[in-house]
Amino acid sequence: MFEGKIIDLSHEITNFTYPGDPEFKLNPLNVENYTISEIKLGSHISTHIDYPKHVGIDNNNIEGDSKDIVIGTGFCVNIKNLDEFLNQLHADKTRKIDILLINTNISKYWGRKEYIEKEIDIEPYLDDILNISPKAVGVDCASIGNYEVHKELLSNGIFIIENLNNLEKLENKYFTFVGLPLKIRDVDGAPIRAISFIENLK
Amino acid sequence: MFEGKIIDLSHEITNFTYPGDPEFKLNPLNVENYTISEIKLGSHISTHIDYPKHVGIDNNNIEGDSKDIVIGTGFCVNIKNLDEFLNQLHADKTRKIDILLINTNISKYWGRKEYIEKEIDIEPYLDDILNISPKAVGVDCASIGNYEVHKELLSNGIFIIENLNNLEKLENKYFTFVGLPLKIRDVDGAPIRAISFIENLK
Repeated sequence: MFEGKIIDLSHEITNFTYPGDPEFKLNPLNVENYTISEIKLGSHISTHIDYPKHVGIDNNNIEGDSKDIVIGTGFCVNIKNLDEFLNQLHADKTRKIDILLINTNISKYWGRKEYIEKEIDIEPYLDDILNISPKAVGVDCASIGNYEVHKELLSNGIFIIENLNNLEKLENKYFTFVGLPLKIRDVDGAPIRAISFIENLK
Repeated sequence: MFEGKIIDLSHEITNFTYPGDPEFKLNPLNVENYTISEIKLGSHISTHIDYPKHVGIDNNNIEGDSKDIVIGTGFCVNIKNLDEFLNQLHADKTRKIDILLINTNISKYWGRKEYIEKEIDIEPYLDDILNISPKAVGVDCASIGNYEVHKELLSNGIFIIENLNNLEKLENKYFTFVGLPLKIRDVDGAPIRAISFIENLK
Protein backbone atom coordinates (compact mmCIF):
# COMPACT_ATOMS: atom_id res chain seq x y z
CA MET A 1 0.00 0.00 0.00
CA PHE A 2 2.69 2.50 0.98
CA GLU A 3 5.60 1.76 -1.26
CA GLY A 4 8.66 3.82 -0.69
CA LYS A 5 9.62 5.79 2.31
CA ILE A 6 7.36 8.26 4.01
CA ILE A 7 9.06 11.64 4.25
CA ASP A 8 8.06 14.11 6.95
CA LEU A 9 7.80 17.52 5.26
CA SER A 10 7.02 19.54 8.39
CA HIS A 11 9.46 21.28 10.70
CA GLU A 12 8.99 20.99 14.43
CA ILE A 13 6.96 23.73 16.07
CA THR A 14 9.48 25.77 18.08
CA ASN A 15 9.88 29.41 18.96
CA PHE A 16 11.52 30.16 15.58
CA THR A 17 8.81 32.48 14.27
CA TYR A 18 8.45 35.09 11.56
CA PRO A 19 9.27 38.57 12.95
CA GLY A 20 6.13 40.06 14.50
CA ASP A 21 4.30 36.72 14.73
CA PRO A 22 3.02 35.41 18.08
CA GLU A 23 5.50 33.45 20.18
CA PHE A 24 5.21 29.72 20.77
CA LYS A 25 4.69 28.69 24.38
CA LEU A 26 4.18 25.22 25.81
CA ASN A 27 2.98 25.11 29.40
CA PRO A 28 2.65 21.60 30.91
CA LEU A 29 0.10 21.22 33.72
CA ASN A 30 -0.59 18.36 36.09
CA VAL A 31 -4.27 17.45 36.34
CA GLU A 32 -4.81 14.55 38.76
CA ASN A 33 -2.40 11.86 37.51
CA TYR A 34 -2.22 13.19 33.96
CA THR A 35 0.01 15.74 32.27
CA ILE A 36 -1.72 18.04 29.81
CA SER A 37 -0.37 21.21 28.21
CA GLU A 38 -1.53 24.66 27.30
CA ILE A 39 -0.19 25.61 23.86
CA LYS A 40 0.08 29.13 22.45
CA LEU A 41 1.11 29.61 18.84
CA GLY A 42 0.55 31.71 15.76
CA SER A 43 -1.54 30.49 12.83
CA HIS A 44 1.52 30.87 10.55
CA ILE A 45 4.09 29.17 12.75
CA SER A 46 6.50 26.57 11.39
CA THR A 47 5.16 24.58 8.42
CA HIS A 48 1.74 26.10 7.74
CA ILE A 49 -0.97 26.68 5.19
CA ASP A 50 -2.23 30.12 4.12
CA TYR A 51 -5.97 30.53 3.55
CA PRO A 52 -7.68 33.33 1.58
CA LYS A 53 -8.49 35.17 4.81
CA HIS A 54 -4.75 35.83 5.23
CA VAL A 55 -5.14 38.48 2.50
CA GLY A 56 -8.69 39.53 3.41
CA ILE A 57 -10.67 37.17 1.16
CA ASP A 58 -13.53 35.02 2.47
CA ASN A 59 -12.59 31.38 3.20
CA ASN A 60 -15.96 30.11 1.93
CA ASN A 61 -16.25 27.41 4.58
CA ILE A 62 -13.10 25.57 3.51
CA GLU A 63 -12.81 23.81 6.87
CA GLY A 64 -16.48 22.97 7.32
CA ASP A 65 -16.39 21.19 3.96
CA SER A 66 -13.03 19.50 4.75
CA LYS A 67 -11.62 21.21 1.64
CA ASP A 68 -8.57 22.14 3.70
CA ILE A 69 -7.34 18.54 3.37
CA VAL A 70 -4.52 18.82 0.83
CA ILE A 71 -4.04 15.47 -0.86
CA GLY A 72 -3.02 14.39 -4.32
CA THR A 73 -0.18 13.94 -6.76
CA GLY A 74 2.78 16.16 -6.03
CA PHE A 75 5.85 17.12 -7.99
CA CYS A 76 8.88 18.97 -6.68
CA VAL A 77 10.96 21.28 -8.87
CA ASN A 78 14.07 23.27 -8.03
CA ILE A 79 13.33 26.99 -8.24
CA LYS A 80 16.15 27.32 -10.78
CA ASN A 81 14.25 25.02 -13.15
CA LEU A 82 10.77 26.36 -12.46
CA ASP A 83 10.43 28.27 -15.73
CA GLU A 84 11.56 25.34 -17.86
CA PHE A 85 9.40 22.89 -15.93
CA LEU A 86 6.25 24.99 -16.26
CA ASN A 87 6.82 25.29 -20.01
CA GLN A 88 7.19 21.52 -20.36
CA LEU A 89 4.10 20.95 -18.26
CA HIS A 90 2.15 23.39 -20.37
CA ALA A 91 3.14 21.46 -23.51
CA ASP A 92 2.20 18.05 -22.03
CA LYS A 93 -1.52 18.05 -21.27
CA THR A 94 -1.47 14.43 -20.05
CA ARG A 95 0.28 15.34 -16.83
CA LYS A 96 -1.68 16.70 -13.91
CA ILE A 97 -0.11 17.98 -10.74
CA ASP A 98 -2.24 18.64 -7.67
CA ILE A 99 0.49 19.97 -5.41
CA LEU A 100 3.48 21.86 -6.81
CA LEU A 101 6.44 22.03 -4.44
CA ILE A 102 9.28 24.45 -5.15
CA ASN A 103 12.65 23.54 -3.65
CA THR A 104 14.58 26.71 -2.84
CA ASN A 105 17.23 25.00 -0.66
CA ILE A 106 16.62 27.73 1.93
CA SER A 107 15.36 25.20 4.50
CA LYS A 108 18.96 24.39 5.37
CA TYR A 109 19.06 27.76 7.17
CA TRP A 110 15.99 26.90 9.32
CA GLY A 111 16.41 28.35 12.82
CA ARG A 112 18.89 31.06 11.72
CA LYS A 113 18.36 34.68 10.72
CA GLU A 114 19.50 33.92 7.13
CA TYR A 115 16.35 31.81 6.79
CA ILE A 116 14.12 34.86 7.23
CA GLU A 117 16.36 37.16 5.17
CA LYS A 118 16.44 35.02 2.03
CA GLU A 119 13.61 35.81 -0.36
CA ILE A 120 12.42 34.29 -3.61
CA ASP A 121 10.63 35.80 -6.58
CA ILE A 122 8.10 33.62 -8.38
CA GLU A 123 6.09 36.56 -9.74
CA PRO A 124 7.33 36.02 -13.34
CA TYR A 125 5.88 32.48 -13.26
CA LEU A 126 2.55 33.23 -11.63
CA ASP A 127 0.51 33.07 -14.84
CA ASP A 128 1.98 29.69 -15.70
CA ILE A 129 1.25 28.40 -12.20
CA LEU A 130 -2.34 29.64 -12.39
CA ASN A 131 -2.55 27.87 -15.73
CA ILE A 132 -1.80 24.44 -14.27
CA SER A 133 -4.23 25.25 -11.45
CA PRO A 134 -2.82 23.12 -8.62
CA LYS A 135 -4.63 22.75 -5.29
CA ALA A 136 -1.58 24.09 -3.50
CA VAL A 137 1.91 25.49 -4.05
CA GLY A 138 4.50 24.87 -1.36
CA VAL A 139 7.96 26.26 -0.63
CA ASP A 140 10.73 25.44 1.84
CA CYS A 141 11.30 29.05 2.85
CA ALA A 142 9.55 31.66 5.00
CA SER A 143 7.40 33.24 2.30
CA ILE A 144 6.25 32.49 -1.22
CA GLY A 145 6.55 36.18 -2.07
CA ASN A 146 5.00 39.58 -1.52
CA TYR A 147 1.37 40.47 -0.84
CA GLU A 148 0.43 40.45 -4.53
CA VAL A 149 1.81 36.93 -5.02
CA HIS A 150 -0.16 35.72 -1.99
CA LYS A 151 -3.32 37.43 -3.20
CA GLU A 152 -3.04 36.17 -6.78
CA LEU A 153 -2.70 32.54 -5.65
CA LEU A 154 -5.24 32.61 -2.81
CA SER A 155 -7.87 34.51 -4.81
CA ASN A 156 -7.58 31.82 -7.49
CA GLY A 157 -8.31 29.03 -5.01
CA ILE A 158 -4.70 27.88 -4.69
CA PHE A 159 -3.49 27.25 -1.15
CA ILE A 160 0.03 28.27 -0.13
CA ILE A 161 2.20 26.09 2.11
CA GLU A 162 5.31 27.71 3.61
CA ASN A 163 8.28 26.54 5.71
CA LEU A 164 8.26 23.02 4.27
CA ASN A 165 11.18 20.71 5.06
CA ASN A 166 13.09 17.98 3.21
CA LEU A 167 12.10 19.12 -0.29
CA GLU A 168 15.59 18.34 -1.58
CA LYS A 169 14.69 14.66 -1.16
CA LEU A 170 11.78 15.05 -3.57
CA GLU A 171 13.39 17.07 -6.35
CA ASN A 172 12.31 15.96 -9.84
CA LYS A 173 10.07 13.28 -8.36
CA TYR A 174 6.37 12.54 -8.44
CA PHE A 175 4.89 11.51 -5.11
CA THR A 176 1.70 11.36 -3.12
CA PHE A 177 1.33 14.41 -0.92
CA VAL A 178 -0.84 14.48 2.19
CA GLY A 179 -1.08 17.73 4.14
CA LEU A 180 -3.44 17.87 7.12
CA PRO A 181 -3.86 21.22 8.89
CA LEU A 182 -5.44 21.98 12.24
CA LYS A 183 -9.19 22.18 11.64
CA ILE A 184 -10.15 25.67 12.80
CA ARG A 185 -13.11 27.36 11.18
CA ASP A 186 -12.65 30.62 9.32
CA VAL A 187 -8.99 31.10 10.22
CA ASP A 188 -6.33 32.87 8.12
CA GLY A 189 -3.88 29.99 8.25
CA ALA A 190 -2.94 26.96 10.31
CA PRO A 191 0.00 24.73 11.15
CA ILE A 192 -0.01 21.82 8.72
CA ARG A 193 1.66 18.44 9.06
CA ALA A 194 2.63 17.24 5.62
CA ILE A 195 4.12 13.99 4.36
CA SER A 196 5.00 12.48 1.01
CA PHE A 197 5.32 8.94 -0.14
CA ILE A 198 6.25 7.50 -3.48
CA GLU A 199 4.02 4.84 -4.92
CA ASN A 200 3.36 3.33 -8.29
CA LEU A 201 1.17 5.97 -9.81
CA LYS A 202 -1.57 4.88 -12.13
CA MET B 1 -4.31 6.38 -6.47
CA PHE B 2 -6.97 7.39 -3.97
CA GLU B 3 -9.86 5.10 -4.66
CA GLY B 4 -12.92 5.71 -2.59
CA LYS B 5 -13.93 8.75 -0.71
CA ILE B 6 -11.67 10.49 1.74
CA ILE B 7 -13.39 10.76 5.13
CA ASP B 8 -12.40 13.49 7.57
CA LEU B 9 -12.13 11.84 10.99
CA SER B 10 -11.35 15.01 12.98
CA HIS B 11 -13.79 17.31 14.70
CA GLU B 12 -13.33 21.05 14.37
CA ILE B 13 -11.32 22.73 17.08
CA THR B 14 -13.83 24.76 19.10
CA ASN B 15 -14.24 25.66 22.73
CA PHE B 16 -15.89 22.30 23.51
CA THR B 17 -13.18 21.02 25.86
CA TYR B 18 -12.81 18.34 28.50
CA PRO B 19 -13.63 19.77 31.96
CA GLY B 20 -10.51 21.36 33.44
CA ASP B 21 -8.67 21.53 30.09
CA PRO B 22 -7.39 24.87 28.75
CA GLU B 23 -9.87 26.95 26.76
CA PHE B 24 -9.58 27.49 23.01
CA LYS B 25 -9.05 31.09 21.94
CA LEU B 26 -8.54 32.48 18.47
CA ASN B 27 -7.37 36.06 18.31
CA PRO B 28 -7.01 37.54 14.78
CA LEU B 29 -4.47 40.34 14.37
CA ASN B 30 -3.78 42.68 11.48
CA VAL B 31 -0.10 42.93 10.57
CA GLU B 32 0.45 45.30 7.65
CA ASN B 33 -1.96 44.02 4.97
CA TYR B 34 -2.13 40.50 6.34
CA THR B 35 -4.36 38.82 8.90
CA ILE B 36 -2.63 36.38 11.23
CA SER B 37 -3.98 34.84 14.42
CA GLU B 38 -2.84 33.97 17.88
CA ILE B 39 -4.16 30.55 18.88
CA LYS B 40 -4.44 29.16 22.40
CA LEU B 41 -5.47 25.56 22.93
CA GLY B 42 -4.90 22.50 25.06
CA SER B 43 -2.81 19.56 23.88
CA HIS B 44 -5.85 17.27 24.28
CA ILE B 45 -8.44 19.46 22.56
CA SER B 46 -10.85 18.07 19.98
CA THR B 47 -9.49 15.08 18.03
CA HIS B 48 -6.07 14.43 19.54
CA ILE B 49 -3.36 11.89 20.17
CA ASP B 50 -2.11 10.86 23.62
CA TYR B 51 1.63 10.28 24.04
CA PRO B 52 3.34 8.35 26.87
CA LYS B 53 4.14 11.61 28.65
CA HIS B 54 0.40 12.03 29.31
CA VAL B 55 0.80 9.33 31.99
CA GLY B 56 4.34 10.26 33.03
CA ILE B 57 6.33 7.99 30.70
CA ASP B 58 9.20 9.27 28.54
CA ASN B 59 8.25 9.97 24.90
CA ASN B 60 11.61 8.67 23.64
CA ASN B 61 11.91 11.30 20.91
CA ILE B 62 8.76 10.21 19.07
CA GLU B 63 8.47 13.55 17.28
CA GLY B 64 12.14 13.98 16.43
CA ASP B 65 12.06 10.61 14.69
CA SER B 66 8.71 11.35 13.00
CA LYS B 67 7.29 8.27 14.73
CA ASP B 68 4.24 10.35 15.64
CA ILE B 69 3.01 9.98 12.05
CA VAL B 70 0.19 7.44 12.34
CA ILE B 71 -0.27 5.71 9.01
CA GLY B 72 -1.30 2.24 7.99
CA THR B 73 -4.14 -0.22 7.57
CA GLY B 74 -7.10 0.55 9.77
CA PHE B 75 -10.17 -1.41 10.75
CA CYS B 76 -13.21 -0.08 12.58
CA VAL B 77 -15.29 -2.23 14.92
CA ASN B 78 -18.40 -1.38 16.92
CA ILE B 79 -17.66 -1.55 20.62
CA LYS B 80 -20.49 -4.09 20.98
CA ASN B 81 -18.57 -6.47 18.72
CA LEU B 82 -15.10 -5.76 20.05
CA ASP B 83 -14.75 -9.01 22.00
CA GLU B 84 -15.89 -11.19 19.10
CA PHE B 85 -13.72 -9.29 16.63
CA LEU B 86 -10.58 -9.59 18.73
CA ASN B 87 -11.16 -13.34 19.07
CA GLN B 88 -11.52 -13.71 15.31
CA LEU B 89 -8.41 -11.65 14.73
CA HIS B 90 -6.47 -13.72 17.20
CA ALA B 91 -7.46 -16.88 15.30
CA ASP B 92 -6.54 -15.47 11.89
CA LYS B 93 -2.81 -14.69 11.87
CA THR B 94 -2.84 -13.52 8.25
CA ARG B 95 -4.60 -10.27 9.09
CA LYS B 96 -2.62 -7.32 10.41
CA ILE B 97 -4.21 -4.13 11.65
CA ASP B 98 -2.07 -1.07 12.29
CA ILE B 99 -4.81 1.19 13.58
CA LEU B 100 -7.81 -0.17 15.47
CA LEU B 101 -10.77 2.20 15.62
CA ILE B 102 -13.61 1.52 18.05
CA ASN B 103 -16.98 3.00 17.12
CA THR B 104 -18.92 3.85 20.27
CA ASN B 105 -21.56 6.02 18.53
CA ILE B 106 -20.96 8.62 21.23
CA SER B 107 -19.70 11.17 18.68
CA LYS B 108 -23.31 12.02 17.85
CA TYR B 109 -23.41 13.86 21.20
CA TRP B 110 -20.35 16.00 20.32
CA GLY B 111 -20.76 19.52 21.72
CA ARG B 112 -23.24 18.45 24.43
CA LYS B 113 -22.71 17.47 28.06
CA GLU B 114 -23.84 13.89 27.35
CA TYR B 115 -20.70 13.53 25.26
CA ILE B 116 -18.48 14.00 28.32
CA GLU B 117 -20.72 11.97 30.63
CA LYS B 118 -20.79 8.80 28.52
CA GLU B 119 -17.95 6.42 29.34
CA ILE B 120 -16.76 3.16 27.87
CA ASP B 121 -14.97 0.21 29.42
CA ILE B 122 -12.44 -1.62 27.26
CA GLU B 123 -10.43 -2.94 30.21
CA PRO B 124 -11.67 -6.54 29.73
CA TYR B 125 -10.22 -6.49 26.17
CA LEU B 126 -6.88 -4.86 26.93
CA ASP B 127 -4.84 -8.07 26.79
CA ASP B 128 -6.30 -8.97 23.42
CA ILE B 129 -5.57 -5.48 22.10
CA LEU B 130 -1.99 -5.66 23.35
CA ASN B 131 -1.77 -9.03 21.62
CA ILE B 132 -2.52 -7.61 18.17
CA SER B 133 -0.08 -4.77 18.95
CA PRO B 134 -1.50 -1.98 16.78
CA LYS B 135 0.31 1.36 16.35
CA ALA B 136 -2.76 3.17 17.67
CA VAL B 137 -6.24 2.64 19.07
CA GLY B 138 -8.83 5.32 18.41
CA VAL B 139 -12.29 6.05 19.79
CA ASP B 140 -15.07 8.52 18.95
CA CYS B 141 -15.63 9.57 22.56
CA ALA B 142 -13.90 11.74 25.14
CA SER B 143 -11.73 9.06 26.75
CA ILE B 144 -10.58 5.53 26.03
CA GLY B 145 -10.88 4.74 29.73
CA ASN B 146 -9.34 5.32 33.14
CA TYR B 147 -5.71 6.02 34.03
CA GLU B 148 -4.77 2.33 34.06
CA VAL B 149 -6.15 1.80 30.54
CA HIS B 150 -4.18 4.80 29.30
CA LYS B 151 -1.01 3.62 31.02
CA GLU B 152 -1.31 0.04 29.79
CA LEU B 153 -1.63 1.11 26.16
CA LEU B 154 0.91 3.95 26.21
CA SER B 155 3.55 1.98 28.13
CA ASN B 156 3.26 -0.72 25.46
CA GLY B 157 3.97 1.73 22.65
CA ILE B 158 0.36 2.01 21.49
CA PHE B 159 -0.85 5.54 20.81
CA ILE B 160 -4.36 6.58 21.81
CA ILE B 161 -6.53 8.79 19.60
CA GLU B 162 -9.64 10.31 21.20
CA ASN B 163 -12.61 12.39 20.01
CA LEU B 164 -12.58 10.92 16.50
CA ASN B 165 -15.49 11.68 14.19
CA ASN B 166 -17.40 9.79 11.48
CA LEU B 167 -16.41 6.31 12.67
CA GLU B 168 -19.92 5.00 11.89
CA LYS B 169 -19.01 5.39 8.20
CA LEU B 170 -16.10 2.99 8.63
CA GLU B 171 -17.70 0.23 10.69
CA ASN B 172 -16.62 -3.28 9.61
CA LYS B 173 -14.38 -1.82 6.93
CA TYR B 174 -10.69 -1.92 6.21
CA PHE B 175 -9.21 1.40 5.11
CA THR B 176 -6.01 3.39 4.94
CA PHE B 177 -5.65 5.63 7.97
CA VAL B 178 -3.48 8.74 7.98
CA GLY B 179 -3.25 10.74 11.21
CA LEU B 180 -0.90 13.71 11.32
CA PRO B 181 -0.49 15.51 14.65
CA LEU B 182 1.10 18.87 15.39
CA LYS B 183 4.84 18.28 15.58
CA ILE B 184 5.80 19.48 19.06
CA ARG B 185 8.76 17.87 20.78
CA ASP B 186 8.30 16.06 24.07
CA VAL B 187 4.64 16.97 24.52
CA ASP B 188 1.98 14.89 26.32
CA GLY B 189 -0.48 14.98 23.44
CA ALA B 190 -1.40 17.01 20.38
CA PRO B 191 -4.34 17.81 18.14
CA ILE B 192 -4.32 15.35 15.25
CA ARG B 193 -5.99 15.66 11.87
CA ALA B 194 -6.96 12.21 10.70
CA ILE B 195 -8.44 10.91 7.47
CA SER B 196 -9.31 7.55 6.01
CA PHE B 197 -9.65 6.34 2.48
CA ILE B 198 -10.56 2.98 1.09
CA GLU B 199 -8.33 1.48 -1.54
CA ASN B 200 -7.64 -1.92 -2.98
CA LEU B 201 -5.40 -3.36 -0.34
CA LYS B 202 -2.63 -5.66 -1.44
